[in-house]
Amino acid sequence: MTSQEIFEQVKKKKSFLCVGLDSDVNKIPHFLYDTSDPVFAFNKEIIDATHDLAVAYKPNLAFYESMGVSGWNTLEKTVNYIRYNYPDIFIIADAKRGDIGNTSNLYARAFFDAMDFDAVTVAPYMGEDSVKPFLTYVGKYVILLALTSNKGASDFQYMAEDGERLFEKVIKNSQEWGDSENMMYVVGATKAEMLKDIRKIAPKHFLLVPGVGAQGGSLAEVARNGLNSKCGLLVNSSRGIIFAGNGEDFAAKAREAAQEVQSEMAGLLSEANLL
Amino acid sequence: MTSQEIFEQVKKKKSFLCVGLDSDVNKIPHFLYDTSDPVFAFNKEIIDATHDLAVAYKPNLAFYESMGVSGWNTLEKTVNYIRYNYPDIFIIADAKRGDIGNTSNLYARAFFDAMDFDAVTVAPYMGEDSVKPFLTYVGKYVILLALTSNKGASDFQYMAEDGERLFEKVIKNSQEWGDSENMMYVVGATKAEMLKDIRKIAPKHFLLVPGVGAQGGSLAEVARNGLNSKCGLLVNSSRGIIFAGNGEDFAAKAREAAQEVQSEMAGLLSEANLL
Repeated sequence: MTSQEIFEQVKKKKSFLCVGLDSDVNKIPHFLYDTSDPVFAFNKEIIDATHDLAVAYKPNLAFYESMGVSGWNTLEKTVNYIRYNYPDIFIIADAKRGDIGNTSNLYARAFFDAMDFDAVTVAPYMGEDSVKPFLTYVGKYVILLALTSNKGASDFQYMAEDGERLFEKVIKNSQEWGDSENMMYVVGATKAEMLKDIRKIAPKHFLLVPGVGAQGGSLAEVARNGLNSKCGLLVNSSRGIIFAGNGEDFAAKAREAAQEVQSEMAGLLSEANLL
Repeated sequence: MTSQEIFEQVKKKKSFLCVGLDSDVNKIPHFLYDTSDPVFAFNKEIIDATHDLAVAYKPNLAFYESMGVSGWNTLEKTVNYIRYNYPDIFIIADAKRGDIGNTSNLYARAFFDAMDFDAVTVAPYMGEDSVKPFLTYVGKYVILLALTSNKGASDFQYMAEDGERLFEKVIKNSQEWGDSENMMYVVGATKAEMLKDIRKIAPKHFLLVPGVGAQGGSLAEVARNGLNSKCGLLVNSSRGIIFAGNGEDFAAKAREAAQEVQSEMAGLLSEANLL
């Protein structure tokens, strides 16, 4: 998928919402436990209820791996379901992988060949050869962790050498490995004031922004500091949407929550003259 | 498993060898393709042929994930096989995970509860709250990436602030989160001269050392710089052992290759008065 195609979808849906499918089996409505694959049944209903409001889905792999073989199966079915029914939607494997070259190659194969993800999140600690194997797939993206939304982000990511912080070094150096057609960055919404600095060194890239909602980041602040001429933002919300309700009407509740975010996004896109 | 128990095993086997089960389905002997689970058949034979020479096994998860659901199944069977038949052996999930707290929690559950690994490799980029959930399991270990063996290690890991390099900062700061009974560090053999510096800041911890053999690191140099009073080293070899042969006798060839390494290790342990 090209960044232009993502932008077309943003304009059509008036949304830059990514729904995080952090579908914890312990938190989904209990009546789904009667089905043969409760998490898939949950995902399917969430996707059907929000597909016209979201431009991306992002399963976090931990929630699937923690269920072992059956979880991996659920993940594959979920990706296939989205791809088959809503082929325009961007699908992100939130995997935070990163290993030596020949091993990253295999992860790339797992997410881009064996499954049909459009993007995978990657941790930058091991440097260029751990990232490059993901960049050889045309139309697929590495989403590199830059500045994360969690508390521990401050442990190492702000470390500075000659005035350049680690997250800035990651963004700068990695632009020698790829470009805005095969790379994006994770920038937490809880650091929205940093988005201005980041836009100076990565003006064209899409940024994946977690941390709006449950983690406390402000959508308006993210948009005002982070939007570029082709949107350039995918803002993720997970729990706030998928667990908005817990009864028979959980999908309708999720839709309402997504609609609320989408409607705010439509206003912000319009304010930035992007519609 | 306590670090003392690992040391007891080292003394008994006169070895600090970790065999990397990077069991690429494309590289295993082709006659195994006739079995119902070729990679498991391969692992089983490798394990049976080397269990008295190795103190640890380390499946790299990429090789299993790249096969999708069936690979995940193979991984579970492999872990169970080692645990059931050779219960003293230390089993490492080379997963290089690391995510926000509640998500790392799920990874911990996946590797320590759903499967019975003793340790999991974790990337430090996201800081304390991404590591801590793994540290709450008694007798289980986080093996934190510090200084890796690949070329890209130099991209960020040597970045320095006030004379302290990132990999040193990782080792120092993380000692506030756990101790040598629940944490180890990855230090590549290709950086053996760094082991002396690292031993100054982490005298007691076990270090997992990849990069001997195929990647060119020297075992003797690693041992002389890295051994402590309770061994403190697990040196990994993957391809050099598991793919030593490619015919019907692949397991015997793997044993020979492991024996060669073990015999050098016995000499080095004896030289350091550890036997």
